[in-house]
Amino acid sequence: MKKINTSPISGMQELLPPTQAIFEQLKSKIAEVYHRHGFLNIETPIIDRTEILLAKAGGDTEKQIYKVVKTAETADDADQALRFDHTVPLARYVVEHEQHLAFPFQVSQIGRNFRGERAQKGRFREFYQCDVDIIGRGQLPIYYDAEVIAAPLEAIKSFRLKSKVVARISNRKILNGLLEGLNLQNNADEIFSIIDHSEKVSPEETHVALEDLETPSADLAILEAFIKTSGDRNFVINKLRALDLGNETFIEGINELESVMLLLEAMGLKDNIEGDMRIVRGLDYYTGTVFEFCLPDYKQVGSVGGGGRYENLADYFTEQKFPGVGGSIGLSRLFYIITEYNLLDVHEKKPIDYAIIPISDKEFVYATRLAADLRRTEKCTTTVVATDKKLGPKLSYAAKIAKRGIVIGEKEVKTNKYQIKEF
Amino acid sequence: MKKINTSPISGMQELLPPTQAIFEQLKSKIAEVYHRHGFLNIETPIIDRTEILLAKAGGDTEKQIYKVVKTAETADDADQALRFDHTVPLARYVVEHEQHLAFPFQVSQIGRNFRGERAQKGRFREFYQCDVDIIGRGQLPIYYDAEVIAAPLEAIKSFRLKSKVVARISNRKILNGLLEGLNLQNNADEIFSIIDHSEKVSPEETHVALEDLETPSADLAILEAFIKTSGDRNFVINKLRALDLGNETFIEGINELESVMLLLEAMGLKDNIEGDMRIVRGLDYYTGTVFEFCLPDYKQVGSVGGGGRYENLADYFTEQKFPGVGGSIGLSRLFYIITEYNLLDVHEKKPIDYAIIPISDKEFVYATRLAADLRRTEKCTTTVVATDKKLGPKLSYAAKIAKRGIVIGEKEVKTNKYQIKEF
Repeated sequence: MKKINTSPISGMQELLPPTQAIFEQLKSKIAEVYHRHGFLNIETPIIDRTEILLAKAGGDTEKQIYKVVKTAETADDADQALRFDHTVPLARYVVEHEQHLAFPFQVSQIGRNFRGERAQKGRFREFYQCDVDIIGRGQLPIYYDAEVIAAPLEAIKSFRLKSKVVARISNRKILNGLLEGLNLQNNADEIFSIIDHSEKVSPEETHVALEDLETPSADLAILEAFIKTSGDRNFVINKLRALDLGNETFIEGINELESVMLLLEAMGLKDNIEGDMRIVRGLDYYTGTVFEFCLPDYKQVGSVGGGGRYENLADYFTEQKFPGVGGSIGLSRLFYIITEYNLLDVHEKKPIDYAIIPISDKEFVYATRLAADLRRTEKCTTTVVATDKKLGPKLSYAAKIAKRGIVIGEKEVKTNKYQIKEF
Repeated sequence: MKKINTSPISGMQELLPPTQAIFEQLKSKIAEVYHRHGFLNIETPIIDRTEILLAKAGGDTEKQIYKVVKTAETADDADQALRFDHTVPLARYVVEHEQHLAFPFQVSQIGRNFRGERAQKGRFREFYQCDVDIIGRGQLPIYYDAEVIAAPLEAIKSFRLKSKVVARISNRKILNGLLEGLNLQNNADEIFSIIDHSEKVSPEETHVALEDLETPSADLAILEAFIKTSGDRNFVINKLRALDLGNETFIEGINELESVMLLLEAMGLKDNIEGDMRIVRGLDYYTGTVFEFCLPDYKQVGSVGGGGRYENLADYFTEQKFPGVGGSIGLSRLFYIITEYNLLDVHEKKPIDYAIIPISDKEFVYATRLAADLRRTEKCTTTVVATDKKLGPKLSYAAKIAKRGIVIGEKEVKTNKYQIKEF
């Protein structure tokens, strides 16, 4: 017999039943919190038109997208691929179903996305993302930026992890305004990238990288002070206002950041937010608020989600303006970290309340009826151990899977009385 | 601007939020019932090795499987494709994780599968299947056949559809024994196919098709009587025993069918089961019990699920013997039928309990705090209507999405008192 490799493909998360049960509890909690915040859940197809998925993409996305080969019976279809995030299919969904939706459209999506990237520990090629987005028609007030930060924060908080969760928040208008004010906008991409990397390297390396761009030394000092700006609302807003650049975009960004942080404080999330000027979020479609979720005690593992404001969700598909703001939890990644660092107090509960153990197949019918009764009347989780093994092995199997056992023999059937054994 | 087609690819089910909410309720009910019956849930990757997926397949499966193109960064991987059912990845899972599982392994899987087949009304290329399987090691008693019929039946019953649901049950040993007894086993494939199609054609056409096989006329009469055999346990078992073929496999099949039906009756499902000799289930790996779920008032739409016993789940991957029995609800298909024939009494509930409406952005913070309070203290679904529209449009948007509204103006903030408006 040819030996076949039965491990899952590299980069796929496959869990054993007890771990899967915990994963699903967390997924349900996220769904519950999102719902409580007023988000309506949708599901888009996993397979979509390549034309849609790659309309806006470039760079890594194009390299990492999984294309799907059409079958003989679907040969007439458009070219297809697997969705790599929830945002692009959402743009298609909003344009397609616009006349049936109420705007602002507060929407959640919980499901698997796919990226064929190099295998790395804790990064998955098939991964769960849990997104909230709010899409406006024409305009969308700043209030909503706070809402898409709050819902994922509250969801992660509901896990009661051994680590705190923090949203680190910035605003692209602050960044853009700063560079405009310093007349450095021609080097914007390089500077964004240096700021983005500044956490992973030493301050000296950042300094050298900025010098290499021939940044005038006064500006360099401002940039370095800027990068270091992180903390609570008062601290960050005062520091930024003190830079006093007189640039309108810069001021607007500061005001937006202040509003968002104020609103999050009103939601009782003061301890779970920080202003942090190192947050850039690479994607070039972000235009205002940007944020990342992280576990500050486990900084080395990077962010477990994030998001931001995009002025135009669907500009590749329509001339209508749909400004949006969205936030996402990278659940597969977060779950990997939770497991790796043991961040959840799990009392692994046996999943089954009662195992009914008929001694021989003569008691199958009685055992079956009893199991059905317990399910219906007590809403219990019940199974029948119907293997043809001896009582000993049956009991030890039952003790492995169930909290309680009920042995059914001739006597029990005759008297219609039975004993419950706690395992 | 180039016009891009924003409809989903043909054969994909994409729902609007209110319909999606109903779909998810049904999916949750299935998960709940499966859990209550003692099944442990798992999720296998959607992308798997082609070698695994096609190990046993042939015919339609090979034509309909979606192959996935490796990306530059995953070029070292094995050839890959999208899973087309839950059973093949389960076989891989069981072989891979065997030492961590307790047998009989009672397992459920709820998720999307993929088949690139010709577009047809009510059939989907990306579709939800909700499976239960019980896998033994070495042997697996007949009791478990009843359990994988009962759990999906109870799940569909929990929907409280306007139509009854029935499991139509047969056993491949009865069929095989019959053909052996009549010495017709050389024509087995053709006869199976004629029986399988007998519901879609007239009795005359079935007669002619059997005649065309040069079946002796006495045997032909037996086969025709056999095909017509359907009904409750007593009726079907008596009819079959009366055929008195003296073939051991035939007798064994009848005894198994009788046991399965008796057990299902003990579970209180007498009204939801029928013996029915027309049930064949094309897949050649079924070896015993076979069944299909259908809505008898909507026979024309075909089955909404089914399953059966397979003597060896994983014979392509291992020399160990894992007998199994499984049942499945085709949820996307069932949901399509439910929607098409209006089988669910849905009182479309507005998903949101409270919409808080600040009159201007001066009341944002108060409104935000109130929304957060209502979520925490009353576990309510709450949203803030923060658009910069006038009060009229804000109220009509709120009335569309929420059960109740709370308008917050200067006075409400000052007095900390507000009125709840029922929509």
